[in-house]
This record gives sequence, C-alpha cells and structure tokens, in this order.
Amino acid sequence: MSEFDLIAKIKAQTARDEQAGVILGIGDDCALLAPPAEMQIALSTDTLVSGVHFFPDVDPVDLGYKALAVNLSDLAAMGAKPLWCSLNLTLPTADPEFVQQFMQGYLELAKQYNVALIGGDTTRGPLNIAVTVLGSVDACRALKRSAAQAGDLIFVSGSLGAAACAVQRRLDGAPEIAELSARLNRPQARVELGLALLGRAQCAIDISDGLAAELSHICRASGVGARIECAQIPIHPALSAHTLPSEALEFALSGGDDYELCFTAPADQLAEILKLSTELGVNISVIGEITTSSGISFNLSDGALYTPAKVGFQHFAETNQAF
Amino acid sequence: MSEFDLIAKIKAQTARDEQAGVILGIGDDCALLAPPAEMQIALSTDTLVSGVHFFPDVDPVDLGYKALAVNLSDLAAMGAKPLWCSLNLTLPTADPEFVQQFMQGYLELAKQYNVALIGGDTTRGPLNIAVTVLGSVDACRALKRSAAQAGDLIFVSGSLGAAACAVQRRLDGAPEIAELSARLNRPQARVELGLALLGRAQCAIDISDGLAAELSHICRASGVGARIECAQIPIHPALSAHTLPSEALEFALSGGDDYELCFTAPADQLAEILKLSTELGVNISVIGEITTSSGISFNLSDGALYTPAKVGFQHFAETNQAF
Repeated sequence: MSEFDLIAKIKAQTARDEQAGVILGIGDDCALLAPPAEMQIALSTDTLVSGVHFFPDVDPVDLGYKALAVNLSDLAAMGAKPLWCSLNLTLPTADPEFVQQFMQGYLELAKQYNVALIGGDTTRGPLNIAVTVLGSVDACRALKRSAAQAGDLIFVSGSLGAAACAVQRRLDGAPEIAELSARLNRPQARVELGLALLGRAQCAIDISDGLAAELSHICRASGVGARIECAQIPIHPALSAHTLPSEALEFALSGGDDYELCFTAPADQLAEILKLSTELGVNISVIGEITTSSGISFNLSDGALYTPAKVGFQHFAETNQAF
Repeated sequence: MSEFDLIAKIKAQTARDEQAGVILGIGDDCALLAPPAEMQIALSTDTLVSGVHFFPDVDPVDLGYKALAVNLSDLAAMGAKPLWCSLNLTLPTADPEFVQQFMQGYLELAKQYNVALIGGDTTRGPLNIAVTVLGSVDACRALKRSAAQAGDLIFVSGSLGAAACAVQRRLDGAPEIAELSARLNRPQARVELGLALLGRAQCAIDISDGLAAELSHICRASGVGARIECAQIPIHPALSAHTLPSEALEFALSGGDDYELCFTAPADQLAEILKLSTELGVNISVIGEITTSSGISFNLSDGALYTPAKVGFQHFAETNQAF
C-alpha cells in the first residue's frame, strides 16, 4: 500500500457533502478556506505520541476519536466554533486496517461537529499523530486565560480524575474499570458549553494536565490568585467508588486527560451559567473564587490547606504541552 | 528542562513585533487570527521524520529552516502569501541546544517572510516535526493542480536534481559536494514567484517528489497529458558537473526535495513569465506542453522516449505525501 493509496482511503472516508467554507479540500498543495465574514480564526494543534499520550495497544478507533477530541477541547476553551481540521499521521507501516479504524473514530467525531478534514500528511516513522483544528470566533468575546478577575467565581464542567485513575490502574496492573477507561479513551470536548459561555464568562482553559496546573496557568496569565474549596471539586462517581477521597482529590488536581473546562465569571452570571447545565446536560460546579493574592489555596473542609503532589505534568518526560 | 521552559524559550525567540493579523499568539488554548478582508485562507501541513526526510546527524539550524521551507513551498504553489505557522515538535529529550538551533533556522526563514509562529506543541517521543502554514489568497486566482489545459506551456523554476544527488552521494559514501548539499539542506521556497504568477498561470505544483511524479499529479487532476522535452529540463550545474547526463536527468525526474515550482500557462503569457525570471532573479525554463493525450511523454533529443525509473517516491517506505 503506497501513500497515495492511504490518502485515497482517507479521502474516500471523508464526507462528500460540501462543508462550510471549504473551497478546496484534500488533493492540492494547499486547502483553500473561506472564513465566515466578520469572524476571526481560532487555531490549535496537539500531538499524540505512542507510549506518552496513549498505551501502544490502544483501540485505533478510540485513538482517532481522541486525537480530534483533545484538539476540539482547545477550541471549546476559547468559545470557538469548530470548522476545519488537518491530520499529520506518522505510521511505522502502511497498515490499512489501522488507518481504516483510526479514521472511523476520527471521522465519527468530525461528523458530529461538522468539522471538515481539509488536508494533512502521511509519513513513515514511529507512530505520531498531530492534529490542527481551526474554528471561528468573535475575538472580542473569545474566552482567554488572561481574563480572570478578582471576585470571579471559578467553575468546572463535568467531573474530574477518572482518566488519570484509569491510567494509574493500568500501570499498576489493577483490573480495568470501564467507566474510568471510557473517560480516558473517549474524552468529550465541551464545545457546546464553550460557545454558550460567550458573553457570560471571559476566561476559560481546558483541563488536560490536571486542574491545579490549569488554574496556575489562569492565575499567571491573569495576574491573580485563587481560593479553591476542595469539597466542591466534582469527582467522577466511578473514581469516588474505587478510591479513597484523598486519592480521588489528588487524581482530580494533579491527573490529566479530563478535557473538561475550567472557567471564571462574575458572580452575577451564576444563575445564567447554572441554567446552562440543564440546557446542555453538562454538570457545572462552582469550586472557588479568583482572589487578589498571588497563589492558589486548596481548602479542605476541615479548614486545612491541601498541597497537590504535582502541579500538572510539568516534566518533559511525562506529557505534551501545547503553546 | 520542562516543556514550560521549552515553550518559554521558543516564545522568547519569536519576534516581539506585532505581526499582521495575529490577535493572540503563543500562550492560550488557541491562537486568534484575523484573516485579511476579502481573501481566503490557504493551509498546508508537512511532517518531517528523522531517517526518512533527513539524516539523523543533520545540522539542527538547517533542519529548522527546511521544516518551514517545505511548507512555504506549498503556499508558493498556490500563489498564497504566507501569514502564520504552527510547529509540533516531538523530541526524544528536552535538549535546549537542539531547540535553540532548530528555532534559529526556523525563525530565520519565518522572519524573511514575516510569518508569525502562532502556536504549536512540544512532546516527548522519537524526533518528528510537523509544521502547518497558513497564507492568504484570492481563491478565484489561486494556482491549482487541476487547472492545466491542453496547449498550455509547462514551466519549471530554478534547477532540479541536486538535492536527490546529495542524498545518493551520502548513501553511497561519496564525498560531499557543498553546492548539492546546500540544495538539500536549504531549499528555497518560490514564494515570490508563486505570487507573481497569479493572473498569468492557472496551474502549479511544487516539486517535492521529483518532476515526473508532480507532472503526473497535474495531468491526473486536470484530465490532460504532457509532452516534455528532456533537453529543456533545467539540471543543476553542480549536478551536471558531477554526473553523466543520463544520471542527472534521472535525478531531476525521479529525485525529490527540489522545492521548485512546476506550472503551466497559455503560450500568450510566455513573454510576461520569462520577464519574471529577471525581475525575481529565478531561472524559469519552458520544458514542454500540456496535451490532450492521457500520458506523459519524455522526449530525448535523439527522438527516443525516456522512461523515468520511478515516478516519484510512491512507496510508503520512501517518503511523505501531503494530501
């Protein structure tokens, strides 16, 4: 199987329907795209490496899904509407079955959000997947890490810690728990929530490297601090069921791969934001408040302060870092 | 050195000047970009893998330069003006010296074309570089593979075959020839030529996988054939000096890594196009004509037909293939 066959296979699997703004898709030196009038472009890119971001025996369908999901999550964190994506796929061998399955998962999610695959590159080499996503957003309303203000409430969508626990159980040789693994393998990008937050929240980040690390990014970028009530942090039910509360908290604060949104908004937006929870079917928790201090305090219910074991995966050996 | 340090290093090296259309650059979940009014976006992406696209002992400065150059070449082939780029850098270790040198070469070229680095991802894993470039173009005038018409003249910029010969000499253990290696290590994207061709040519492709393969892409996409006069194919002087004419022709037709433009235009544009050669200081050769037949004939000066040994690097084991 040549690259040309591989590309033909990928092209054949992409939707034939005309997709918004795609003037020229796969097949030329460049794709040609027409951005929506009066809007700006949001762009993000993430790499996934075997053995770093996923176990080498991962289901290729899940891998394809996740490769796009983690990128859509970045669009969600800006409040951008997904439009287009590209895919750089480096494979050890031209394995048609792997490509078929990978693209099945990838395109399942692309179809869900009507995201057009507009180009990419196939290459031989150690398995490496780079996805770039583009969306549209009114830049004046986009959610930014730097826009948190003292007094803002801090919100988190969904629940945290399940994916990191699934990874740890696998590393420990503990039996797999399907509900935890599902969160690892099929993260849900909070695209609809990100869009709904425009005009209500000003600041957001997606939680890919653990809540503590993401909060520190917000605080640094905004020049603020935060006070977090640990008891309010939404722990995934299956995580609570299988670990001690202290372990669960640690997974939520220092774990990764949640792909929920952490966002801040003025207190007068509270009712409107909580209404979104029902409208969108996504749990939304208030976990604390932005402060004028320079650090983040994690308050336990007994009044003691908690220190996360690590603030995200800062070490190069452990994970990726989008910039 | 953590990823955050790496990113800080990359960010510090990017130009501080405000660059066109960059509303928000490195540092948030997404970059925010304002496309020029009335223009469309051209997007391309290419991956470079160690041992496939470059020798593992390549000078990191050259590698950084080339990683961007091969992508700019795709914009050139559409007649698009480079605007922005992103970089997915997968490294075995967080090697500050490598990053410093890689970025030196990358940003040298980015600065030349005022291309803003607006985001990316750093990851641990086997060395893998994915670059995505975005440019602006009037989609109605963009140069397309599918726009060749019978009777069009076929043009090639610069000269061909040198880079492929440099690779072969290295594989054969033959002494390095600086002029050949320079073409391999520092390819010149024909950005200015691509822009100047708008309105004069309708069809172009960049020559990354050898002239024969690129011509076949044009012919397939346009539903035409081609007649090539082999004696008119511009062979790099250093290649002519160090190989037999038949070997040189083979490098030009079946080799790779030239990053020149092959384009077609109606014969009445000939004088205007040749004038560009002087204006831009780029050699431009007429090498043949688009025909109504379904194949490509490579005519030798004695009237015989030549058959390239291979039509580009079609085998998955040999090279990448952008789509």
